[in-house]
Amino acid sequence: MANSTNKPVKIGLVGLGKIAVDQHIPAIRANPNLELVAGCSPHARPEGVVGYSDMQAMLAAHPEIEALAICTPPQVRHRIAKEALAAGRHVFLEKPPAATLGEAEALRDFAAERGVTLLASWHSRFAPAVGATRDWIAQRALKSIHVVWKENVRQWHPGQAWIFAPGGMGVFDPGINALSILTRIVGDTVVVKKADLHIPVNCDAPIEVGMDMVTEGGVPVRADFDFLQENLQTWSIFVEAEDGGKLALSMGGTILEIDGKPVMQEPEREYPGLYAHFHELIASGASDADFSPLRIVADAFMLGKRIAAPAYVE
Amino acid sequence: MANSTNKPVKIGLVGLGKIAVDQHIPAIRANPNLELVAGCSPHARPEGVVGYSDMQAMLAAHPEIEALAICTPPQVRHRIAKEALAAGRHVFLEKPPAATLGEAEALRDFAAERGVTLLASWHSRFAPAVGATRDWIAQRALKSIHVVWKENVRQWHPGQAWIFAPGGMGVFDPGINALSILTRIVGDTVVVKKADLHIPVNCDAPIEVGMDMVTEGGVPVRADFDFLQENLQTWSIFVEAEDGGKLALSMGGTILEIDGKPVMQEPEREYPGLYAHFHELIASGASDADFSPLRIVADAFMLGKRIAAPAYVE
Repeated sequence: MANSTNKPVKIGLVGLGKIAVDQHIPAIRANPNLELVAGCSPHARPEGVVGYSDMQAMLAAHPEIEALAICTPPQVRHRIAKEALAAGRHVFLEKPPAATLGEAEALRDFAAERGVTLLASWHSRFAPAVGATRDWIAQRALKSIHVVWKENVRQWHPGQAWIFAPGGMGVFDPGINALSILTRIVGDTVVVKKADLHIPVNCDAPIEVGMDMVTEGGVPVRADFDFLQENLQTWSIFVEAEDGGKLALSMGGTILEIDGKPVMQEPEREYPGLYAHFHELIASGASDADFSPLRIVADAFMLGKRIAAPAYVE
Repeated sequence: MANSTNKPVKIGLVGLGKIAVDQHIPAIRANPNLELVAGCSPHARPEGVVGYSDMQAMLAAHPEIEALAICTPPQVRHRIAKEALAAGRHVFLEKPPAATLGEAEALRDFAAERGVTLLASWHSRFAPAVGATRDWIAQRALKSIHVVWKENVRQWHPGQAWIFAPGGMGVFDPGINALSILTRIVGDTVVVKKADLHIPVNCDAPIEVGMDMVTEGGVPVRADFDFLQENLQTWSIFVEAEDGGKLALSMGGTILEIDGKPVMQEPEREYPGLYAHFHELIASGASDADFSPLRIVADAFMLGKRIAAPAYVE
């Protein structure tokens, strides 16, 4: 144990799908302050994890579990998180934190009431170049920000029909990652002014979004999200300063260019950062539950103009 | 002056349309703690009010104005409110408080920063039977709540094409009044679970909404909003308790029946109540900025299923 004074925090995983296997399990195992005790899922039973079919069975068998990481689909996250908080466990929520702002705010209030830690995680905020971008912005008056998030839904979300169902958010599912970075690097409230939502005629959620926002300080922010990008996959944020300075944050926050020169290119290691943050929050008795990315999406849906797009067939 | 120790608070009106003339001006004039100094509007110039074409001209001519009531259309409310707060004036916002939750939250933060009062008003909360309904609910375990808000848009909103434009909210424009009562009488967070949004094929906002909600305590809440109600106009909330008790709050909160017996029927006097509340907030240095009705609408738009409805032609 690297931590010589305290025992590692014992963690149970709820939901054992792709994100749990690819990201959560390795990140927890790599952190000496954490210990993966067991996992539960009605379906999956990944190799090397003590598995249960539901959370209550897991907690009955392992009452020593202190914290639960919830990686289920968003539609059931609120109910499970509420049970976990009611059982006095700290909770790590995958993104988005809930299906609605109301659910998310209720979880925040309930965690505060129970005196346990709630982390509403936004993994993209832990991309390597986000901190340096925030620092660069803090030292400058900004002229504009342009967010370009374009990926191929067929490549990245095969078989995920829920993404175009009511509540599935469509292209906002990846777009909310961009918004989580945006709201982190700009030290100011970001407000939606106009949104064009291109919704396939056979779907309930947009496949393409163009959005005009503005910071409270008056900096215009344009966002272009596209789910039908076939060639170069693009997850970039471009920032222009009043003094002519230019910053480009690319590949989801792993590559940073300033004034046209590369200054950082590092491998993605978001989940190790997230779990280190979760451990710090538990150790200090704090919570981190910022719902501003979800609030921007809800505002875009409320304010948005709906434009019919061709039917989407995977 | 009824108030013998303090001078009345001097008020300026921003926006002099129908709601200002019908409600704000008489309510301010009837309150001895308030004094209507002037109003501004690019269009209207109602009789008996000192008028200016914009807020800055009004404030330049009357620097003694301490508080501003903002009754413009919601799309420009945030910009004007921000200018008013920046000028150190207390602000009364008509409903809805802004076009988005982001704008509303930014105003709340800015008012707190400037140390002035912000009232995000929900006039329906001041209907006469709302307090008694809240008391009745507080004493009981509830079984269910049913909100029925059905009115004829052609009768109540003639010429208001903005109501079906992006951000106009459609039938949520009256429906948010019901939600403001709901969130006041239930002492618990209300969360949207499912929403059917019937949107005319030539519009951007719903003309009919069916919504399933639930309180954090687990009480199911059904809402039915309809903008095409031709005969009996209905603005009712029905509450059933676990003990069999039944409460009906009708005509927008002016008629109360408990267990089938009428217990209250009083004339609507919402704006006098609102302005008394505004004066109390100013006198005590407090704010009242609860955005939960707007949050429910945003969540319904984000989560809702869009169903094509026949074209709407006024």
